[in-house]
Amino acid sequence: MARPTLEIVAARAAVSRQTVSNVLNSPHLVRPETRTRVEAVIAELGYRPNRAAQTLKTRRSQLVGARIEPPRDGINRVVLTHFLHALTSRAQLQGLRVMLFAADEDRDEIGQYEQLLEDHDLDAFVLTDTHVGDARTAWLAERQVPFVTFGRPWGALSAYHSWVDVDGGAGTRAATTHLLDIGHRRIAFLGWPSDAAAGDDRRDGWAQTCAAAGIHDERLDVRVPEGLEHGRAATAKLLDLADPPTALVCVTDSLALGVWAEVTRRGLRVGRDVAIVGFDDSPTAAVIGLSSAAQPMDQAAAACLELMHTVLDAPQPAPTPPGPVLLAPQLVLRASTARD
Amino acid sequence: MARPTLEIVAARAAVSRQTVSNVLNSPHLVRPETRTRVEAVIAELGYRPNRAAQTLKTRRSQLVGARIEPPRDGINRVVLTHFLHALTSRAQLQGLRVMLFAADEDRDEIGQYEQLLEDHDLDAFVLTDTHVGDARTAWLAERQVPFVTFGRPWGALSAYHSWVDVDGGAGTRAATTHLLDIGHRRIAFLGWPSDAAAGDDRRDGWAQTCAAAGIHDERLDVRVPEGLEHGRAATAKLLDLADPPTALVCVTDSLALGVWAEVTRRGLRVGRDVAIVGFDDSPTAAVIGLSSAAQPMDQAAAACLELMHTVLDAPQPAPTPPGPVLLAPQLVLRASTARD
Repeated sequence: MARPTLEIVAARAAVSRQTVSNVLNSPHLVRPETRTRVEAVIAELGYRPNRAAQTLKTRRSQLVGARIEPPRDGINRVVLTHFLHALTSRAQLQGLRVMLFAADEDRDEIGQYEQLLEDHDLDAFVLTDTHVGDARTAWLAERQVPFVTFGRPWGALSAYHSWVDVDGGAGTRAATTHLLDIGHRRIAFLGWPSDAAAGDDRRDGWAQTCAAAGIHDERLDVRVPEGLEHGRAATAKLLDLADPPTALVCVTDSLALGVWAEVTRRGLRVGRDVAIVGFDDSPTAAVIGLSSAAQPMDQAAAACLELMHTVLDAPQPAPTPPGPVLLAPQLVLRASTARD
Repeated sequence: MARPTLEIVAARAAVSRQTVSNVLNSPHLVRPETRTRVEAVIAELGYRPNRAAQTLKTRRSQLVGARIEPPRDGINRVVLTHFLHALTSRAQLQGLRVMLFAADEDRDEIGQYEQLLEDHDLDAFVLTDTHVGDARTAWLAERQVPFVTFGRPWGALSAYHSWVDVDGGAGTRAATTHLLDIGHRRIAFLGWPSDAAAGDDRRDGWAQTCAAAGIHDERLDVRVPEGLEHGRAATAKLLDLADPPTALVCVTDSLALGVWAEVTRRGLRVGRDVAIVGFDDSPTAAVIGLSSAAQPMDQAAAACLELMHTVLDAPQPAPTPPGPVLLAPQLVLRASTARD
């Protein structure tokens, strides 16, 4: 069978050649229904854009740099692999490739940017794990290297650069609302110390929902470092209160697993006696039956690529960075919040 | 500070320029102690090989293709991310970059090879997840595209291509030996149905160790499909025997988690009443305290790159593929095999 051409894809999807080209290069210009239809035809026919022609037309390398996470946290950060997979799958459908690098901290990562730009002339970078005082975004912005971050510019102006993020507060709001709906009134929050901006965002969702329901007990607002053991110790203290919580919302699945360990150690039943909700919907949560707020990684990757195309199509530097995109997490309910 | 040169690295490490060049381009030619010393100096000084010069000299793109795993199993396969991270870190120390692709099955992956070779002229591929009747290795071998696999050529001649693998039988042998040492005599094995060659390899380690200890009970040799629920159901049957096992060795951590769930559901204590050992040392195992056989991913990645250099330096096709390299897994002992 002959290799499918742009013309064949356009005919089959009943759109113009320009629309197919837009789906591949500037998907933000195409209506979602049309995009879905054209992408389905591309996948069905196995159409592959001719990269040489594309490079000639756009003068781009069609390469995007992204970091692979070091395996330092076995629970929550595993979901960043899902993001990287989604980014890779979606990018290759558009004729783009993801070039990987590894780095331990900002300075190291900037060193990798330098080398990648020198050796392979990348079009753009997709960053993860933004944080207060992020040296990477400052470096890229100063050199006018196009980039998009998955994670907002914590501690900086929201319009500092293009970003996609998940609304942590919406996740804990949904979790707390659900716990109130099924009858809980003593709902604790296990969060991080207040220097972690993402943690404060997640705490706010819980605190605001409790306040709106007329509930306030600051003994139930607990701050601990990340990790199962810290979660376990904090839970022991909470369950020793004269009026212990019947439900705990946690800033991560790691802390939620610590809650789980302490609850079962006491012979209490998870779900029936004590409800637990985590954050990040890690693979571990799915396996043991922990309810958790899931970050929509496919949507996040698609949004990052779309913003990236907009950034690349804009004059450099863009007067205002396109975006941001704030996505709602999805509360996944499992046995740990079931009352029977 | 001036950018460090090859000369400066050589002087600091007290070796010749050629040795530094060999560490970067043909590490298999350098003695391990020397390599470690030179690599430490490279890292310390932040030396970066000049890729343009390297490409000119070797006529290589310095690009290696590797697949990112789809997130289809949340427990065991997560460890392949560690392999990809180790491959990326070590490759970039040698001036190589990993270009990612996503693919669902062999045909799809071969389509990606075609496109990657056409667009980016990759030097080689590193494959994971080899299986009986692997269409990918046949395709690459036929076209004389250099590649190395992490995973042996199951069902084909061992010398079919260059490969690195972990000795599954050695892992279950170590697990079973440890259980015998701490006094267990009724040791069951939860494995896969016999069409999975890697599963048979792991079963053999258990069966041979039991046989050598004069133990044989075929009711304790159980074959179930992968997944926590299958592990749980099989454990229920085993624990209902008149003479139930006191220890279970599992072909994966997923099945071991199923054992764990059934043991605790019955009010038995993991470790003290029933010992459990998994395979793959997943992040979940580390968190809940499951003993497990760990695949040495850093070593595996280093060995894959080293074989790849040998393949690239050999005339194509090589008369005999270099390798294989078979690595021993490491048994990580945790609470699930502790008797107190």
